[in-house]
Amino acid sequence: MLEPLLYPKTVAVIGASRTPGKVGHDILANLIDCGFKGQIVPVNPNADCILGLPCCAELRNHKGGVDLSVISVPVPMVRAAVESSIYAGAKAIAIITAGFREVTPEGAELEREIARLCAARKVRLLGPNCAGLINTHHLMNASIIPNLPPAGGISVISQSGAVCTAIMDWAARRHLGLAKVVGIGNKADLTEIDFLEAFAADEQTKVILGYLESISSGDEFVKVAETVTSAKPVVILKAGTTQAGMRASASHTGSVAGSEVAYGAAFKRSGVIRADNFEKLLDAATALATQPLPKGDRVAIISNAFGPGIMAADAVEQSGMQLAALAQGGSTALRGKIPVLERAGTPINVLGDADLELYGAAIEAAQEDDSVDAVIVILTPQVMTQPAETARTIAHSIRGNKPVLAAFIGGEEIMPSLDEMLDRNLPDFPSPERAVTALRALCEYAAWRRRPPRVVTRFPVHRRRVERIIARHLRTGRIYIGDVKAKEILHAYGFTVPEGHMALTADEAVEVANRIGYPVAMKIVSPNIIHKSDAGGLKLRLSNPEDVRDACDLMLLRIRQRMPEAQVEGVYVERMCSPGREVIIGMNRDPQFGPMLMFGLGGIFVEVMKDVSFHLAPIAAEEAMQMLSETRSYALLTGTRGRTGVDLSAIANSLQRISQLVTDFSQIAELDISPLIVREVGTEPVVADARIILSGVGLNHE
Amino acid sequence: MLEPLLYPKTVAVIGASRTPGKVGHDILANLIDCGFKGQIVPVNPNADCILGLPCCAELRNHKGGVDLSVISVPVPMVRAAVESSIYAGAKAIAIITAGFREVTPEGAELEREIARLCAARKVRLLGPNCAGLINTHHLMNASIIPNLPPAGGISVISQSGAVCTAIMDWAARRHLGLAKVVGIGNKADLTEIDFLEAFAADEQTKVILGYLESISSGDEFVKVAETVTSAKPVVILKAGTTQAGMRASASHTGSVAGSEVAYGAAFKRSGVIRADNFEKLLDAATALATQPLPKGDRVAIISNAFGPGIMAADAVEQSGMQLAALAQGGSTALRGKIPVLERAGTPINVLGDADLELYGAAIEAAQEDDSVDAVIVILTPQVMTQPAETARTIAHSIRGNKPVLAAFIGGEEIMPSLDEMLDRNLPDFPSPERAVTALRALCEYAAWRRRPPRVVTRFPVHRRRVERIIARHLRTGRIYIGDVKAKEILHAYGFTVPEGHMALTADEAVEVANRIGYPVAMKIVSPNIIHKSDAGGLKLRLSNPEDVRDACDLMLLRIRQRMPEAQVEGVYVERMCSPGREVIIGMNRDPQFGPMLMFGLGGIFVEVMKDVSFHLAPIAAEEAMQMLSETRSYALLTGTRGRTGVDLSAIANSLQRISQLVTDFSQIAELDISPLIVREVGTEPVVADARIILSGVGLNHE
Repeated sequence: MLEPLLYPKTVAVIGASRTPGKVGHDILANLIDCGFKGQIVPVNPNADCILGLPCCAELRNHKGGVDLSVISVPVPMVRAAVESSIYAGAKAIAIITAGFREVTPEGAELEREIARLCAARKVRLLGPNCAGLINTHHLMNASIIPNLPPAGGISVISQSGAVCTAIMDWAARRHLGLAKVVGIGNKADLTEIDFLEAFAADEQTKVILGYLESISSGDEFVKVAETVTSAKPVVILKAGTTQAGMRASASHTGSVAGSEVAYGAAFKRSGVIRADNFEKLLDAATALATQPLPKGDRVAIISNAFGPGIMAADAVEQSGMQLAALAQGGSTALRGKIPVLERAGTPINVLGDADLELYGAAIEAAQEDDSVDAVIVILTPQVMTQPAETARTIAHSIRGNKPVLAAFIGGEEIMPSLDEMLDRNLPDFPSPERAVTALRALCEYAAWRRRPPRVVTRFPVHRRRVERIIARHLRTGRIYIGDVKAKEILHAYGFTVPEGHMALTADEAVEVANRIGYPVAMKIVSPNIIHKSDAGGLKLRLSNPEDVRDACDLMLLRIRQRMPEAQVEGVYVERMCSPGREVIIGMNRDPQFGPMLMFGLGGIFVEVMKDVSFHLAPIAAEEAMQMLSETRSYALLTGTRGRTGVDLSAIANSLQRISQLVTDFSQIAELDISPLIVREVGTEPVVADARIILSGVGLNHE
Repeated sequence: MLEPLLYPKTVAVIGASRTPGKVGHDILANLIDCGFKGQIVPVNPNADCILGLPCCAELRNHKGGVDLSVISVPVPMVRAAVESSIYAGAKAIAIITAGFREVTPEGAELEREIARLCAARKVRLLGPNCAGLINTHHLMNASIIPNLPPAGGISVISQSGAVCTAIMDWAARRHLGLAKVVGIGNKADLTEIDFLEAFAADEQTKVILGYLESISSGDEFVKVAETVTSAKPVVILKAGTTQAGMRASASHTGSVAGSEVAYGAAFKRSGVIRADNFEKLLDAATALATQPLPKGDRVAIISNAFGPGIMAADAVEQSGMQLAALAQGGSTALRGKIPVLERAGTPINVLGDADLELYGAAIEAAQEDDSVDAVIVILTPQVMTQPAETARTIAHSIRGNKPVLAAFIGGEEIMPSLDEMLDRNLPDFPSPERAVTALRALCEYAAWRRRPPRVVTRFPVHRRRVERIIARHLRTGRIYIGDVKAKEILHAYGFTVPEGHMALTADEAVEVANRIGYPVAMKIVSPNIIHKSDAGGLKLRLSNPEDVRDACDLMLLRIRQRMPEAQVEGVYVERMCSPGREVIIGMNRDPQFGPMLMFGLGGIFVEVMKDVSFHLAPIAAEEAMQMLSETRSYALLTGTRGRTGVDLSAIANSLQRISQLVTDFSQIAELDISPLIVREVGTEPVVADARIILSGVGLNHE
């Protein structure tokens, strides 16, 4: 798909230079040094020959075509270089030059213009303001980063060239091979999504690593990532997650960072392994690139010392995995050999004077044992320890059927042993906790791969009815939909709402109240009044005709006094809901990822305790249930302190209906049901109060 | 104080062996190899000479005395070796041999016996089951760990020999010097507390590092640690914090781990820097050993690339520190040199082609700038980067007035540059986030050193009254103090309790109610009834004489029916408290650390949301206020959603009074005020219900 970019036969370097240290020189040098088998065309009007290659003065005059054109000329000359490349037949262009969107509005405009130019000719554009790209399996380094790394299974997508370099340098240290490394820079055309797709299809890529400061098209990202992660693991470090980080990021690739919560929800939803920091990114990648996926989360710890074994045990439990006990068989095989018998659920201690055989025997037993899913092997240098020999023995004991991760702990003493392990795909981590965290990423990804298919229920609803209400609001320029009409919309999507009717006078209000039964609530209806209770436009628990009459007269009087300009349509008289547990369902549309559902218990739980959970719509039934159980106050829903629980699946159902509603109507920008009143199992939740805000971008006529 | 142990002139090795690999051989070899200047006495009845030193057959026959005796003979011979050492005049004994308390009850008994033997002669005992000790400034390695590390300022106290070894090996890699390294093993006599004191007094020690699985005497630890940390930083990794870790730990040094919450409270209280994992332990030690303390938490980030700069900015904000903006002066000095001007509160970017001067200028500007407290300098290897030269330039720019931490990120490329930095006390961390975490430890410790003096208020109370109530309970074998007597105790310590009196009959109850005024509560009083409401022994909000009479008759009837054996002393008629916000104050006595206070809001906040805070008693006023603000529901106390706040200092006051009560009376094992009713500022909190449980160990007659 990105063949001309990733596997070009001819690469032109526009801005090739004779001066070492200049970008145009270094790219050319990198291309030559890596042993590229295709044709390299340096373009420079003032040179005949650079680094032994004949120069072309103007690419448009070059005969024989070109697949990829790498541009490093100064900003004012980039546009001409792009045109020249297109004219010469380039199918892909990489612009290394910086100084576009990230600097000035004019730079942004120029960037858009160039992108349009390329798009018109179906030429794919990488950058600008990027590090270029490397494809080890094509012996191609068309980047500013020196050296071609050893070939392997890790592909890198990075918004920062420096991070590409750091990852390459780190991979060399860990003896890990790389497949493709791409600096995506300002993403004027090609984005992380294009490369996720390309690397998913790429046979050489086993693991995809990403460093991102922004995501270009959130909902597409989620869709693509979900497909990609079903085949290959994707680990992403999303930087710029704090206010400070965002300020720093805004001056970099000119990107606008999305809401933090939304990124969390998007990664969870699409099976992307999220790295909180740089080490976790690399550690997870190491484990994923070298180890098979575990069948479960029971971890055997083998250690030649108690202390680090205890640290590992702590880390295993803290990360939500389980410490494995070797089953009877495994234990028996080892019983004669291991001095201190391990007790159920404790690390296997091969003691300080562990000889090579003992380590080997313990690792083999753990790999054979059906009650072990993964192994962590720890070594500290002790008097009798032979780190290098032990490393060799351990490496030779690896079967490859279960993940085995090592933590050789120390410094100088253990350095010589690492190479041997790394060469045999046995990754080493410098502390027990780091090994556990890396294993955790493996386990999480394995669980994602085992997930049941996601089925989003489509409920039968009255969609036309909602369309009409929304259209009517937008036609009259109203984006706020108050309680009464919001309930009509929710009712059309299967929600139970209290019976109620409009009244224009106190007499009518009493008549309505008599008809629907007491107690009633009374609410002013006006497009100008959003905060009803502040304006005196809300009365609850009116229990007889006199109270209704008084409330209605008083309400109309107050509104005339306080908000004389408000256009009053009447008062809404509504049967009071019977009391129950109050929950809140909300939605707002994240600019990157689209509709984000929110759930929490009413009142202080949302407002003071911030005890809420989020999920991207559309959601499946299990995800809706998960939203409930993710709140800290969940126990109040399931029942506690002698109170019976509420109908959980009825709430989950409500969340799914909201999910369907906001997916059906992209005009809905925000929605709040606050509260939804829920009661014991078998009862219908009732919408006590609701409001909807439209985005005002006009109705989609589908 | 531990002079004979840490600075012995003569060291005997009982169990010295000719066979390499045997512990008795290795210890002797280590002592000889490290260049020990004192006398070494190998003890072995079957050898004349080992490793060139003449042997002594029996230490008791050795002429000329001995300061330290190191014992590595098998368990059955240890007792005799100890006696022999004492006879020969040893002032300190280190038992390396394992197989005592950690293995069998007999081992535990033998260990106690040996400890008694030593104590009787005022001989200090290290171990058993320990790695021995190292004192680099005395050129002494009396341990099983090979090599004498370079001398420096870090001293290590560890319950695991393997952890000692790992730390030594790691320190060598980081070019950090060590002062003392002690494996404390089973702690039969000398514990972490002794070594905290010794290292606090030790001129060579600048930083104390601890690996602990248990703490021997919690309250003494807190007292000693608070003094030590006021002079030198103490960083401790407490392992065995999870169920899994505790199981693993129990089989190690035979220690019983204390409550997790208590450790957290104890470390907070005593200024100990707590490391969650092994890397944090080492990273914090590195920063503390090499850097000056910062005056505040404003961090300047200098980076040659945006990506890692953003990661660092994220980490700074997440850890609660602030990103510094260079003040006008600093910026001007740099303005001509730095290509992209930094904006306020963003990392200072010296760009990918940063030359050495630019790095140097940026670091100097940051060190001069009054709005910067600490500097993090980041380098990623890029085309033009010269890591080694940059390292040198940076190292030369260090003034030593503010902490400067480096994060050179990558692998192979940056390896050569590290040594130069390390040698100049510029610590390097492998990721931006690790550098930030290490800096955070520095900042925290600096804040601890700046803390105001802790003043624990002593309130005037009626202590004798409480003594009498407790004595009376214990005399009659009752450890449960119910609501009525608990309120008497609390009243004696200055709490407001509702007016109330005992009644024996319904007539009396009505009489009491009429006197104190309605509404009243009525509570059964019986030493046998703990859960009053379950037994039908609690009635609330009785508002007239008839209700009181009915309730009393019914209560006495119910109790006779449900608990015929209960000894009923009467009913307690009490004025109902006016409603307010309900909070809970609790105390239980941690086996390690003593009285632990708990605070939380009543009802679901404690029971469902587990929203509680803890602090060790006694507490000062600020600590009490901190207990309030540490709860997530704090906003409900300060006022929110249109409700006015409650009297915070009145609650803090109550916490301090409870602190005084439970410190005065060690017989109080548990105490609960549930709830304490608090209202607006200026009102007294009222104890609505309380109970106290005594430990039953008898009254201290002071």
